[in-house]
Amino acid sequence: MSLSYEASGVNYDQLDAFKRACQQAASETTRNLAARGYAEPSGVRGESAYLIEAGDHFLAHVEEGLGTKNLVADAVLRETGENFYAAIATDTVATIVNDLVTCGALPVSVAMHAAAGDSAWFADTARMTALVNGWRDACNLCGAVWGGGETPTLRGIVNAEALVLAGSAIGRIFPKSNRVTGTVSDGDAIVFLASSGVQTNGLSLCRLIADKLPQGYRTPIGHGDGRTFGQALLAPSAIYAGFVEACQKRGLPLHYLAHITGHGWRKLMRLDEPFVYRIEEPGGEPALFQFLREAGPISLEEAYATFNQGAGFAAYVHPRDVAAVLAAAEASGHRAWRAGTVVKRGSEKRVEIPSLNLAYDAGSLRLR
Amino acid sequence: MSLSYEASGVNYDQLDAFKRACQQAASETTRNLAARGYAEPSGVRGESAYLIEAGDHFLAHVEEGLGTKNLVADAVLRETGENFYAAIATDTVATIVNDLVTCGALPVSVAMHAAAGDSAWFADTARMTALVNGWRDACNLCGAVWGGGETPTLRGIVNAEALVLAGSAIGRIFPKSNRVTGTVSDGDAIVFLASSGVQTNGLSLCRLIADKLPQGYRTPIGHGDGRTFGQALLAPSAIYAGFVEACQKRGLPLHYLAHITGHGWRKLMRLDEPFVYRIEEPGGEPALFQFLREAGPISLEEAYATFNQGAGFAAYVHPRDVAAVLAAAEASGHRAWRAGTVVKRGSEKRVEIPSLNLAYDAGSLRLR
Repeated sequence: MSLSYEASGVNYDQLDAFKRACQQAASETTRNLAARGYAEPSGVRGESAYLIEAGDHFLAHVEEGLGTKNLVADAVLRETGENFYAAIATDTVATIVNDLVTCGALPVSVAMHAAAGDSAWFADTARMTALVNGWRDACNLCGAVWGGGETPTLRGIVNAEALVLAGSAIGRIFPKSNRVTGTVSDGDAIVFLASSGVQTNGLSLCRLIADKLPQGYRTPIGHGDGRTFGQALLAPSAIYAGFVEACQKRGLPLHYLAHITGHGWRKLMRLDEPFVYRIEEPGGEPALFQFLREAGPISLEEAYATFNQGAGFAAYVHPRDVAAVLAAAEASGHRAWRAGTVVKRGSEKRVEIPSLNLAYDAGSLRLR
Repeated sequence: MSLSYEASGVNYDQLDAFKRACQQAASETTRNLAARGYAEPSGVRGESAYLIEAGDHFLAHVEEGLGTKNLVADAVLRETGENFYAAIATDTVATIVNDLVTCGALPVSVAMHAAAGDSAWFADTARMTALVNGWRDACNLCGAVWGGGETPTLRGIVNAEALVLAGSAIGRIFPKSNRVTGTVSDGDAIVFLASSGVQTNGLSLCRLIADKLPQGYRTPIGHGDGRTFGQALLAPSAIYAGFVEACQKRGLPLHYLAHITGHGWRKLMRLDEPFVYRIEEPGGEPALFQFLREAGPISLEEAYATFNQGAGFAAYVHPRDVAAVLAAAEASGHRAWRAGTVVKRGSEKRVEIPSLNLAYDAGSLRLR
């Protein structure tokens, strides 16, 4: 039997119902902004970052969490002594900031939330120091200040050995024309930026697979990649803030940006307006994902509906800008390629990957 | 033997060491603000809110969490069927916003972080709806927009039945002269604003006490208060944003504001500069705290070093402004009183409560 993300205990239906209730209630607080001198731009609810309109700029607010990836770091530390907590800090900052920049905001301030089940978590100085310095380095990498945080002990809520890692960010869009509004047209090009691995999505499923493997996280992933499963999983996430900044500095209009996380490539159809997203060049499948599909086993269809499969970030741009956008990606340290085309086909909304014989309908993604 | 907060499993020494490491590393990211058009005002590291200086205003950034109070709501729901999740939402917003306003910022946007151990948490529609609507109402009460959030499932990190509740806020100080700078002088008056109960601090200890009581949370607290222990603990926290806004509108300079949470009344000496904080009128001890001291037992000294003891917020103001500050508190729905005086006595730093024969030295509080 092929493993599904549902098997790892995450029921998106229940979560999405809660998210929709939150969005409805949140819309009943919008009027408060006027008294503070701000306004809510239309169409921001349900996007990856919440936007606030000020005089000559927008502020962006994001709250995000790492998920369960640090459980992998804990297991690897126990089994091999390798300390990946600097990478874990990068992952947490990345998951916050990569959501933030999808609207065109550049990160200003990032705050840490680290909730332990027991204050003894912080007594391991090497691990604690890696987390702290990793967070600092990730802030410096994306150009944000580390603006405080919170480190509670939550005995009885968080498991004694574990840590909840999350945080928030404030961003700014200036000038306002840098806002990514989702104005996508038939024929727009889809540019993919490479991921460094699973980054921060699908980790519950990866942990389930590790539990089934005789060598667990020490299993070599093969396919020409010399790393173990644990090492490959714990490669620090790419942070795409520099790419967005480079495009803005070069005056390249970004029609839409998608941070490919939960729901895998289905995230490509996050826009309300119906389009067909035809992925003509999915890129080679990195060794880690080949390993995951075999070890699961996970079907190809489930893999692309769950993981980033080597593409962590997507930009939809005018075809004439593709070469310049690829250059901006390279200049900011990211491998990128033209992956596909946005096609208007009436009211059809789907993601198609013809070379892999895969397609996902609108019904497979409910985020709003 | 008298119960201490340490007995409830919270080791502030380990936590504070981590916090200091974070503050050191965070200070190495400050230079990033310039490229975004912002600056860091001096003296903000270690305060309850992180401040960012913009042209004609300051932005404030806070990340905060509820702590373990929702475990009390879970137990009461199981035992009596009473659903206190609207109050729990208020508590979470309060703990974020009450930190934010200490610098003079008014809340602009509040984001929710709700991390469940199992997505089934959200299947209880009544509880989920109370949380959602309570969050909305608390945002409306403090004048903030509900600016998004994050609701992950963290199996293996968060206990299956539990929820981590936290969030973040963006605030704004405008005009800049509304900033609360901590410019306190010999002779300043200390005004206390009443709390609604324990609010969000000392809950681990309260749960320890509930476990020892034969009737648990159903124990009547007595002392002329008709509520049970559970009902009294779950009174929603006061939100002091309206008080700060009322003082600003009336042009009343606030020299310092303290949100009385962890470390109880020791928080009154949070300023670096040494002063003696003489509390001449601590206010009557609410029934809940009398009950807690007897049921623990908890010594008077430990109680005032741990709980807010009926005073949730403190404002240090010029003596001539006391009457007007008290009127601003009343107009914003808070009971308040002149509680004491800030005294310059050389390099002495302590909190004194002569009528209770209590005193806390600087050494008992290490936050920075």
